[in-house]
Amino acid sequence: MNGDTLVQSRPATRSGASWNFGAGPSRLPDAVLARAGDSLLRRAADGMAAIERPFAGTTFREILAAARERLARLLGVPDHYRVLFLAGGATHQFSAVPMNLLDPSSGLRRAAFADSGYWSRRALAEASRYAETTVIARHAGDTPLAVPPLGEWTLPPDTAYCHITANETADGVAWPAWPETGPVPLVADASSCLLSAPMDVSRFGLVYASAQKNIGPSGLTIVIVREDLLHRPASMAPLPFQYRLQAAEESCANTPPMLAVHLAALVFEWIEACGGLTAMAATNMRKASLLYRAIDESGGFYVAPVEPGHRSMTNARFHLGQACLTERFLDEAEAAGVMHLRGHRQLGGVRASLYNAMPEAGVEALVGFMADFAEQHR
Amino acid sequence: MNGDTLVQSRPATRSGASWNFGAGPSRLPDAVLARAGDSLLRRAADGMAAIERPFAGTTFREILAAARERLARLLGVPDHYRVLFLAGGATHQFSAVPMNLLDPSSGLRRAAFADSGYWSRRALAEASRYAETTVIARHAGDTPLAVPPLGEWTLPPDTAYCHITANETADGVAWPAWPETGPVPLVADASSCLLSAPMDVSRFGLVYASAQKNIGPSGLTIVIVREDLLHRPASMAPLPFQYRLQAAEESCANTPPMLAVHLAALVFEWIEACGGLTAMAATNMRKASLLYRAIDESGGFYVAPVEPGHRSMTNARFHLGQACLTERFLDEAEAAGVMHLRGHRQLGGVRASLYNAMPEAGVEALVGFMADFAEQHR
Repeated sequence: MNGDTLVQSRPATRSGASWNFGAGPSRLPDAVLARAGDSLLRRAADGMAAIERPFAGTTFREILAAARERLARLLGVPDHYRVLFLAGGATHQFSAVPMNLLDPSSGLRRAAFADSGYWSRRALAEASRYAETTVIARHAGDTPLAVPPLGEWTLPPDTAYCHITANETADGVAWPAWPETGPVPLVADASSCLLSAPMDVSRFGLVYASAQKNIGPSGLTIVIVREDLLHRPASMAPLPFQYRLQAAEESCANTPPMLAVHLAALVFEWIEACGGLTAMAATNMRKASLLYRAIDESGGFYVAPVEPGHRSMTNARFHLGQACLTERFLDEAEAAGVMHLRGHRQLGGVRASLYNAMPEAGVEALVGFMADFAEQHR
Repeated sequence: MNGDTLVQSRPATRSGASWNFGAGPSRLPDAVLARAGDSLLRRAADGMAAIERPFAGTTFREILAAARERLARLLGVPDHYRVLFLAGGATHQFSAVPMNLLDPSSGLRRAAFADSGYWSRRALAEASRYAETTVIARHAGDTPLAVPPLGEWTLPPDTAYCHITANETADGVAWPAWPETGPVPLVADASSCLLSAPMDVSRFGLVYASAQKNIGPSGLTIVIVREDLLHRPASMAPLPFQYRLQAAEESCANTPPMLAVHLAALVFEWIEACGGLTAMAATNMRKASLLYRAIDESGGFYVAPVEPGHRSMTNARFHLGQACLTERFLDEAEAAGVMHLRGHRQLGGVRASLYNAMPEAGVEALVGFMADFAEQHR
């Protein structure tokens, strides 16, 4: 029986619904999707839809300011930080961060990295094109996977910043606590975890996150930066990458990705209406626990390679004890409506992304499918 | 009588409709706006809306490939060019172009610029941060405005490329013909004119255009680049700026701005259904002629500062003979439903942007208002 036949013959999930477990772009909250058409695409009495308005006009500026304030409120961003809405994805920040934070004339020519997996190595590779780099911490062992040891990190005196990947989207590894870096600003790529739970921004010099996980559509990245870091020269940074300029121009030094900003604004409203980040975290914890328990209690049919305390709440990674069943598992999952479970192409296996907009019913459908599949193939 | 009172008391346009003459983001075609909700935001049978799908999945890849092919067909892009869909706006390309096209190790360390107005100077200022620059041509006189003289341009032997702004969005100036640059690749910022009329891409080494004029929403820029230019080293370019990489990865070296790509795809379909770029040009010519005639025949009440042969078809700039009436004109225009006519903040006066999606009825409303206003205040 080939994959196509399987796809035809399998029923949908028990509930009949379909769920996208892809790593991003991700599901939008139902309430946001329901409002988006009217909010973005319907022409108002003055003949203009939101996406047709000038970016310098009061309507868009008010939406942008409200989104910025709501995000700051949700996260409790301290007053001495600035929130920027920039075009592009986290990959743009892999170069923008060193371009903005290095300051060779003050002796700050080095970027330190903790190597916790695929995306921290991607960020490191890009920074190496602009900076001296040091890998300051790396997990020693192979399995179970974990973030590097947290102990005292001794950073070279020319270190401009220390970068961590707060949640490794591909590896499924998350930091159980933040490292101490003394006076060196800690920078976090929080793409796949920002807004999934409270985050103490004051522990960081800079936090960035692409939108297509918990925030909205692709094409937008949030940067939260401590004001004192805006005084570094950024002499090589392309104009739209310059944090100081974008902060001064309220993210409008050039035309911002307005449609994505509009959608992000709706998502922030939804999170607030749901009870904020504490409520998000509670739901996300229940979803992750349900899935990891199904893995751990499968008697080795499913295996999670990450050490329990370091498991990502948003990107749960596992593989099948019998690796030869993986393709069949993925095919049947698609047909059963639990979709896009294939692991990152560099790592293989299975990955279920459980971002904010994934309801508990989706995770119940997934563990239901996993139980059925295990029973059939054990 | 103050501005607010005027705003309250004026009627809308004769037709009752309102029209956005802003320089961008601009109006979307009615047919595109009508389809956008269903195309982008409605969940399909598999439970996913277009904006929720993985960017690496077949659905999005097919939409992207179809958009690329349709754009290439509309413009008649030769086979030895590549079409890229990149995040951000034209401002990103102000640095991406020198970062990709300079090749110091082959002696190509210079960028030549024709200074035709505000945006060519912005592009020049940004390129000067990465390249030796030369202004190769500049319009000598003050008024009437025009593009620089076309005659033979002698480019220094270390010139990597020569940059023109095909249509000056702020100054309202357009090139009546393209300059000859011999073996040096000609590069055009065509943000405000691409797809408003046919364009012979084979005359250029590279053409770029931000989307928020004739293509769709902000956050997306089209780059059309001749393949031989992809072999230059781009050693300083941030990864998502690297043309060779993005060409190899079909614009998906990192997550692209999917929502904007979806909308652009709908706009390309609309242009094709309308009869393509020849049809666009015919309509745009009628719209521009109607407006410029109203200006030229106003007996000096309205004045167009640009030489007739160099007037932009998409961004018509003019001022009032009695400059003291400008604010009143702009206030009453807003109230009358002909909106966002204020000239660029650096240049003042009035500007009407007549992109593809502005119907002739909008321009008729504008010239009707202008006639009424002139009659009242002459």
